[in-house]
Amino acid sequence: MIIRTVLIALFVGVPLAGQVVAPTAAGYRKEFGTMWTFDAPPLEYWKATYDFAPDQGWLDNIRLASVRLPNCSSSIVSSRGLVLTNHHCARSCIASASPRDTNYNEVGFVASSQADERRCEGLYVDQLQSIDDVTARIRSASRAPTATAQAERRARVIDSIQTACQQSTGLHCQVVTLYQGGMYSLYRYKRYDDVRLVMAPEEGVAFFGGDPDNFTFPRYCLDIALLRIYENGQPLAARNYLRWSSQGAQEGELVFVTGNPGSTGRLLTMAQMEYLRDVVYPENLAAYARQLEVLRAVTKDDPERARRYDNMIFSLANSEKAVTGYRSGLVDPDLMAKKRAFEREFRARIAKDPQLRARYGGAWDAIGAAQRELASFDKAARYRSFAGSQLLAMAGQLVRIPAQSALPDSARLPEYRGQAIERMKRQLTTPAPTDTEVETRLLAAQLAAAKRALPANDPYLQAVLAGRTPEAAARAMIGGTTLSDAAARKALLDGGARAVAASTDPLIVAARKIDPLQRILSTRARRLNALIAAEGEKLGQAIFAAYGTSLPPDATFTLRISDGLVKGYPYNGTLAPYRTSFYGLYGRSAEFAGKPPFHLPARWLTRADSIDLAAPLDFVSTNDIIGGNSGSPVINRNAEVVGVIFDSNIEALPNRFVFTDEVARSVSVHSSGITEALRRVYGAGWVVEELAGR
Amino acid sequence: MIIRTVLIALFVGVPLAGQVVAPTAAGYRKEFGTMWTFDAPPLEYWKATYDFAPDQGWLDNIRLASVRLPNCSSSIVSSRGLVLTNHHCARSCIASASPRDTNYNEVGFVASSQADERRCEGLYVDQLQSIDDVTARIRSASRAPTATAQAERRARVIDSIQTACQQSTGLHCQVVTLYQGGMYSLYRYKRYDDVRLVMAPEEGVAFFGGDPDNFTFPRYCLDIALLRIYENGQPLAARNYLRWSSQGAQEGELVFVTGNPGSTGRLLTMAQMEYLRDVVYPENLAAYARQLEVLRAVTKDDPERARRYDNMIFSLANSEKAVTGYRSGLVDPDLMAKKRAFEREFRARIAKDPQLRARYGGAWDAIGAAQRELASFDKAARYRSFAGSQLLAMAGQLVRIPAQSALPDSARLPEYRGQAIERMKRQLTTPAPTDTEVETRLLAAQLAAAKRALPANDPYLQAVLAGRTPEAAARAMIGGTTLSDAAARKALLDGGARAVAASTDPLIVAARKIDPLQRILSTRARRLNALIAAEGEKLGQAIFAAYGTSLPPDATFTLRISDGLVKGYPYNGTLAPYRTSFYGLYGRSAEFAGKPPFHLPARWLTRADSIDLAAPLDFVSTNDIIGGNSGSPVINRNAEVVGVIFDSNIEALPNRFVFTDEVARSVSVHSSGITEALRRVYGAGWVVEELAGR
Repeated sequence: MIIRTVLIALFVGVPLAGQVVAPTAAGYRKEFGTMWTFDAPPLEYWKATYDFAPDQGWLDNIRLASVRLPNCSSSIVSSRGLVLTNHHCARSCIASASPRDTNYNEVGFVASSQADERRCEGLYVDQLQSIDDVTARIRSASRAPTATAQAERRARVIDSIQTACQQSTGLHCQVVTLYQGGMYSLYRYKRYDDVRLVMAPEEGVAFFGGDPDNFTFPRYCLDIALLRIYENGQPLAARNYLRWSSQGAQEGELVFVTGNPGSTGRLLTMAQMEYLRDVVYPENLAAYARQLEVLRAVTKDDPERARRYDNMIFSLANSEKAVTGYRSGLVDPDLMAKKRAFEREFRARIAKDPQLRARYGGAWDAIGAAQRELASFDKAARYRSFAGSQLLAMAGQLVRIPAQSALPDSARLPEYRGQAIERMKRQLTTPAPTDTEVETRLLAAQLAAAKRALPANDPYLQAVLAGRTPEAAARAMIGGTTLSDAAARKALLDGGARAVAASTDPLIVAARKIDPLQRILSTRARRLNALIAAEGEKLGQAIFAAYGTSLPPDATFTLRISDGLVKGYPYNGTLAPYRTSFYGLYGRSAEFAGKPPFHLPARWLTRADSIDLAAPLDFVSTNDIIGGNSGSPVINRNAEVVGVIFDSNIEALPNRFVFTDEVARSVSVHSSGITEALRRVYGAGWVVEELAGR
Repeated sequence: MIIRTVLIALFVGVPLAGQVVAPTAAGYRKEFGTMWTFDAPPLEYWKATYDFAPDQGWLDNIRLASVRLPNCSSSIVSSRGLVLTNHHCARSCIASASPRDTNYNEVGFVASSQADERRCEGLYVDQLQSIDDVTARIRSASRAPTATAQAERRARVIDSIQTACQQSTGLHCQVVTLYQGGMYSLYRYKRYDDVRLVMAPEEGVAFFGGDPDNFTFPRYCLDIALLRIYENGQPLAARNYLRWSSQGAQEGELVFVTGNPGSTGRLLTMAQMEYLRDVVYPENLAAYARQLEVLRAVTKDDPERARRYDNMIFSLANSEKAVTGYRSGLVDPDLMAKKRAFEREFRARIAKDPQLRARYGGAWDAIGAAQRELASFDKAARYRSFAGSQLLAMAGQLVRIPAQSALPDSARLPEYRGQAIERMKRQLTTPAPTDTEVETRLLAAQLAAAKRALPANDPYLQAVLAGRTPEAAARAMIGGTTLSDAAARKALLDGGARAVAASTDPLIVAARKIDPLQRILSTRARRLNALIAAEGEKLGQAIFAAYGTSLPPDATFTLRISDGLVKGYPYNGTLAPYRTSFYGLYGRSAEFAGKPPFHLPARWLTRADSIDLAAPLDFVSTNDIIGGNSGSPVINRNAEVVGVIFDSNIEALPNRFVFTDEVARSVSVHSSGITEALRRVYGAGWVVEELAGR
């Protein structure tokens, strides 16, 4: 499942004006993919490649119809504000709409009519109204002698641009950093915050195949949810919405995905990719595996715990599969050869021009040196921390809050700035159940990993183990702490620095020792990352200088439009069809004897006979997507909905760094499968009528 | 599809008596697989691994029930001589049983009753009666000063053993070379040559998914045919047959495959494997691709040619997929590391014992040197030949037959010994249509490849191209020859050496020049291969000396019993179930819009409603099989049929050299799928009753 993950978020600026230049057909470089911004649609490339030339009205309409959820994408699909997204994007909406004794995530929900729709707490939808280039303004206002001072000034000017925009327009305004800071754009959104649940299938069929089938194709998921935007208590009278295709996705046809890809790393240097490949990803994978091992062991024969840790296990397993896939691109010699060739060519272009060389030529080596330095103390920085246990993490906050509160905001650690301390205090004082056994085992696993990774005389190990085995230390600390009690936490918060210093709680004692160790290395890492970001921004500018905007910027969880074809691909020694069928859904369930995660909800079993089993259920296309694109509409040339994105196949994971479309595919629910299920399984004929515009 | 292919067939002897020692549990080495002979069943290993201890009666019964077809395996499955095998094993039987205006391969056939069964021309079934160790006799009778003389003597003693056995018993007798000559066994078969067709499905469902799905799983083929053995005009009253399981294969259960694996190369040395990996397979793959390119181009818009070359294209595509898979094992660093580790250990065991070292210690280096020498002239040997065109091959025979006929049998080239010349003469004088355009294109492709591979001054290129382009040369030779006329060929045959020498036919002229070039290199290669075979036999003996028979011998298209488990596996980022379903069959057909090779025969479409779509169709198990095993029964502990082998998955192809069972699987038709189809689709209830023993 393509859940949005954040890769690298820190950028520091160096002045050079970006410019919006539409990509040309000739300048198109496949390896950078097709996540185009709406202010630079590649009209010439579309015309040359597909003989497709949409007008501005076509683009404006789909921009306004392709609305963003807090963590996903979606689209308006009727004149009465019906919104299509994924089930996995609407989970908390569905939960909040459920009555006390029922979980609509499990059993599904279909409103009997519009009047029966249920409010989703806290959910909002953002509609992108306009985009303005503010690069020049930000550059000129953020001139300063040092990278740190530049960053401070830039943060201030961005904040003032956003605030002024919000005050003058009443819209939600965001300055988006593109090309690692090579360009800044002001995005203005209209926010709708009355969103109601219309229909959600059972999780069993929305996430059919569960963890194993996640990130794969052939696939058989009805991963949809239908919501409705309300305005002034009435269904939104939508001027811009997408019509429903009567045919759905057809093999070979041109389709567009309009949504909000979260993050990619296609403009990273070789040194940055190697650092991810050799340092970050292996350690992350080991950490996922470590935690999964504990959680699977403790939930194996304990259904209650299994329910409690279900989401955490899913999220870890999902990350493990995704990062394994990302890394597989970085260890693929062919893909890396492409990257190396691009970097060589890029550097050569810069080196040829004395002015460009003077400005940008040193960036690659500077980044390489900083990455090497980061790698040199990565293990120490990783383990000298409050990680491994929720209670230890809380102890860390309790130790730090008094000292950080005393500092002016700009002098605090970044995670203690702005409203962060108030948020932490609220969480720390809210009672929440703690599973001591799980906490102990997770901490023991963390300590054991630290013991393997660090030299025996490392001060962290001496502080937390004090000669004990990891198991004994974890058991003593978790067993001896009172921090699982919210009242105890509140007492420490209220007592301030003095209470913390006097505490003999074993986790507070440990956190006091870890605190300085962690701070030294995190400060050093922050300095190096700021340097990498500043040099990375130079490279973002250099990209313009060398290639213009013919390369789309890395993903930023803002609206993009990606072109692609509906197309099967070679897999498993044979062919994957471009689409699956309801036959396939029932088949895969039968082939695993209907056992979870391949069981089908009851109404699917009783209504099997009324379904056209040959009808399409899911399909694949070559569009360029990544986490954040979940729920994006897939539309044809006529801007009609032919499907909804919900995943990539596993072959597409390396696309994070190098886009390819030989076997990499986006996976969508087919629009015909949606209407077939709505009508035959869910008896939601009225929704089908609305989709059909009747 | 696991069609039998022959890898290496030449062996020369060195005396040391082999001995039949049953493999032990402790001595079992997984990488050598589980193709056990019936005279050395691994009883101790079965007992330790599965707690399974069959008695001799169990073994004798399944040996006698597991009968061999000329090129496949099969089994007797009723007391009235019903035989189960694959559709693809019975193709020529089915064709010969078809009336003039109908092809049962296409439309299927179901006898309405036993009286309606149709005779298959030329088909016979061999039943293994007994196995005797004749190693000592062959060794003592084949002592001679040189390898060549040894080989001659051994061939004579083998021939006399076989003849004497046949005369005294009336059985078909064959001396089988095991362990590359480390052991010789006399196999005695009872041959049944009245075999009739009972039932065959349409090829569309027997080979559903065609080339693309070939060698893969999940799979949806009803690849079966039912035959019946007749004796004295009556159905065989079978004393030994396999009962039909009422349940069929169950997930996780122990199953055995009893059949005739064709050839494996697990006892080859590293040098031999590297030679296949780096020299033989790449050239073979290039040759398959070259021919497929021509044949696909000429048949693309020409249905008549498509029909004519259909089998040739299938066979080339099948070989291409298989060899690609075999090679993928040889380029897999992990698999090769296993082989290297074994060879190191094996060599160390031999080196430790002075006597063994003196006898066998030099074999590896001798083989390595010979392989290197073969590699040094491989390209010349490959292209200085009559390959590339059927007509050129006939020209080569016409040039050689007069000279070879004049020599004593033992002095002839091997392919002209025995009855070969008479057979060639018959074929040469039989009229057969020639497709001049296809011949020209294939020859041009061959010449172009030769031009790329050989230096410009190579005498072969000078002889065949004579300065022309490959296309011009091919067009001139094929256009100018009269050899497509059987009468012209007969005239040259009748005219003898004088007529051949006088001919100005351009193919005869070319063949006269190629003849000596080819002979020099093929003689040199034969000498080196004999040396490799002689050294290989030493290693076969050394295997005994070091390991006993705890390692099963390489496959020899003789009866073996392999143990395994019914078990799914990880694939495509998710899980493959242990079995597929009829739902899956209809799904895959629908997902490719019913286009060939995913179309379903008419009766499958009309009778879909009467089938239990959730019933199992195909399944996988970890049994050790290879080409020749097609049609083998899969039986459970009770010797009941639970399925019939018809393929491996693509992950199993590297098993040719190193057996693994993490993801490698045998693919079978499930016995319940067979009875479901017989009853619901084919209306063959009487056959189901017979299978059930009623």
